[in-house]
Amino acid sequence: MEKILVLGAGRSATSLIAYLLNQANSFGWQITVADYALQLAEDKVKGNPNGKAIAFDINNEQQRETVIAEADVVISMLPARFHVAVAEACLQFSKHLLTASYVDDDMRALDNQAKEKGLLFLNECGLDPGIDHMSAKKVIDHIRNQGFELRAFESFTGGLLMPNKEEDNPWEYKFTWNPRNVVMAGQGDVKFIQEGRYKYIPYHHLFRRTEMIHIPGHGYFEGYANRDSLQYLEVYELQGIQTLYRGTLRRPGFCKAWDVFVQLGATEDSYSMEGVNGMTHRQFINSFLSYNPNDSVELKLAHYMKLDIDGPEMHKMRWLGLFEDTPVGLQKGTPAQVLEHILKKKWTIGEDERDQIVMWHLFDYKDGDQTKQVRSAMVANGEDATDTAMAKTVGLPLGIATKLLIQGKIEARGVQIPITPEFYNPILSELETLGFHFIEEEVVVD
Amino acid sequence: MEKILVLGAGRSATSLIAYLLNQANSFGWQITVADYALQLAEDKVKGNPNGKAIAFDINNEQQRETVIAEADVVISMLPARFHVAVAEACLQFSKHLLTASYVDDDMRALDNQAKEKGLLFLNECGLDPGIDHMSAKKVIDHIRNQGFELRAFESFTGGLLMPNKEEDNPWEYKFTWNPRNVVMAGQGDVKFIQEGRYKYIPYHHLFRRTEMIHIPGHGYFEGYANRDSLQYLEVYELQGIQTLYRGTLRRPGFCKAWDVFVQLGATEDSYSMEGVNGMTHRQFINSFLSYNPNDSVELKLAHYMKLDIDGPEMHKMRWLGLFEDTPVGLQKGTPAQVLEHILKKKWTIGEDERDQIVMWHLFDYKDGDQTKQVRSAMVANGEDATDTAMAKTVGLPLGIATKLLIQGKIEARGVQIPITPEFYNPILSELETLGFHFIEEEVVVD
Repeated sequence: MEKILVLGAGRSATSLIAYLLNQANSFGWQITVADYALQLAEDKVKGNPNGKAIAFDINNEQQRETVIAEADVVISMLPARFHVAVAEACLQFSKHLLTASYVDDDMRALDNQAKEKGLLFLNECGLDPGIDHMSAKKVIDHIRNQGFELRAFESFTGGLLMPNKEEDNPWEYKFTWNPRNVVMAGQGDVKFIQEGRYKYIPYHHLFRRTEMIHIPGHGYFEGYANRDSLQYLEVYELQGIQTLYRGTLRRPGFCKAWDVFVQLGATEDSYSMEGVNGMTHRQFINSFLSYNPNDSVELKLAHYMKLDIDGPEMHKMRWLGLFEDTPVGLQKGTPAQVLEHILKKKWTIGEDERDQIVMWHLFDYKDGDQTKQVRSAMVANGEDATDTAMAKTVGLPLGIATKLLIQGKIEARGVQIPITPEFYNPILSELETLGFHFIEEEVVVD
Repeated sequence: MEKILVLGAGRSATSLIAYLLNQANSFGWQITVADYALQLAEDKVKGNPNGKAIAFDINNEQQRETVIAEADVVISMLPARFHVAVAEACLQFSKHLLTASYVDDDMRALDNQAKEKGLLFLNECGLDPGIDHMSAKKVIDHIRNQGFELRAFESFTGGLLMPNKEEDNPWEYKFTWNPRNVVMAGQGDVKFIQEGRYKYIPYHHLFRRTEMIHIPGHGYFEGYANRDSLQYLEVYELQGIQTLYRGTLRRPGFCKAWDVFVQLGATEDSYSMEGVNGMTHRQFINSFLSYNPNDSVELKLAHYMKLDIDGPEMHKMRWLGLFEDTPVGLQKGTPAQVLEHILKKKWTIGEDERDQIVMWHLFDYKDGDQTKQVRSAMVANGEDATDTAMAKTVGLPLGIATKLLIQGKIEARGVQIPITPEFYNPILSELETLGFHFIEEEVVVD
């Protein structure tokens, strides 16, 4: 009887645990779900006879070693900073490890030891990173296997809300993932390659240099650049490619309004504001505007940002309650922390609301004299605020990879990410049977 | 015979050393000028019989101790990071120390030990910080001694060029101080107080939120905010003040053009650019612009920044040679390093060019029902590229303070900055005899 240990039972582990429990019934696995909050683990196991919920403290070394020693495969859904402690225990007791997090230098350093012990340490096997790797690399390999050379690769993913005409939310957006990451998105330096030239965008222009993307059947989206496009040169072996661009999708109009926060300095995280205790939403916005006793905060903001006072950006600000004399409700904080706290009041997803994941790739290659383009898109909808598209697309690839590993269908060992056929073919196939499929179209553009 | 040791004989030490040698003739002092480059020290001593030039390596601990042990007073013109090593040797051998640099935590920590040994460690006694402290604090104390309460304090300083109608430089600016500090100016978070409210400006709006300042007889200047206004709350005991703002002066039009570099991301220092070796000025600018084979770099820049293609900002960019296919001439670098290198080609001050220091303060206080304003301005001109206004205004306050200390006219001990009458009265008086005087005007504004 295979024993699978899942560390962390938060929202993003919902679909993973459900999938594993479901498979456990067929294959006779035993699933142990470990969380700091026992109740959370019990809620996910739902009394399934193949499951067991335990209270677990990652910082308790003895407990960490005991529960990992008892497992055959470990899946860590913990915050990425805990993965190395888990990985070291996995080495010590010779256990496979799977995560949905980016490989960092600490994880990479364990590659040799994992290989020597015949262990797979599979990372970046969720949505983004995860499904993006698999779906993109599959097309890239297909183009190359035909002898063609890839000229351009662009890839965008967004965690959004399903379109809902009854909702009056002009942002068409709520937090469906870590709110702090949304507020901090894009800080740092953005680099990419466009027609063979390195290009740089500073943070304060990121949300102004968007691309419009159309996905048949789903309409238009705005994409802004991610920081890390150049990392993919090596990972996908794209050296020499003419265009390489990775980005994030939002619904049209989002970026121009979000840019107001960036321009104000309201997403800065490097200093604590004065007098947060007692500050109102209106005072928060006013602290970034010039003093003028005769003008309203609304007019000062519109003038400073060159916005129509009744235009769509100002409407989005009003809808968030930013001009109201409502107390922020924090004792202290950086601008980014105050903004996140205010946004949560309106951007927390309701129990019946459904999220949507949108992923879109573009591949450009030369076939003789012709320039051909492959466009590939996946759109996945959540069921409600618990069974989200985000949880499904993060968790299911990990669940499927675990099954393949236990069934002996994965030969790779050491620190891996799912960019080879033995990963992407079976995982994408099973995802398709579960309703997650990419629609591809190929066109001659030139 | 008093022995004065000057560490560092760079451009900023020119006037200090000349002043000390001149006084040495009257008072029988001996001046030792120590620099890593012996020639530089010799050039400054000019064979004066009261002076001695020595080669000196601050990192050579034994030499550091030997030369400091032989002195009575040490003046450090070295980069600020070396001051603590100097200060520790001064403690060890019981020597007074004077610098023109900001007090940092390491220096502050030596306060008790210096006091116990009866030593003065005087810092921030140059121009800015230095003359700004003295000239501002003198007026603040005067207002308070009359029983009035200070409502507002604004203070601006600029290191500029003397107006020169024959020069075609549309920036009316060249580097007269550390070029890197000019390129990096304003990065970080800017905080100040306006009418009792804390205000914040992010870097990417700093050069757009300028104030226009008029100095009678010298015309108009632009001021942008410095990072550190709030530090002065404690230093000058201004708690409760309604407006507190410190800034930097430039000639009108400078800031809007400089903002182009900020907006492009050309002043970023956090990442190395690709392909700097072989990059031209034009390619440097183009790396921050979108790809479009049909548009010129000039038009793309003007469009992106919403500038008139023939307007003053584009003219300033053309004058700098930014659109030329001239090689940058660096092997590698961050955007800020590349920009600094390009700017130096045009912004290096010629041997006969004269710099100008402009300092301006505004003080606002209530006298009964009346609101009164004191405005105070100093304008100082350099003689040439060596005997600069910058060197004079940085060095002379230090030289005068040294004389006062040797003459027993300074009683303060420990880590100090020159904000009390025993410093500011005699130093400002002697500066006046040397031609550096503040013109004050007082007006009733309300």
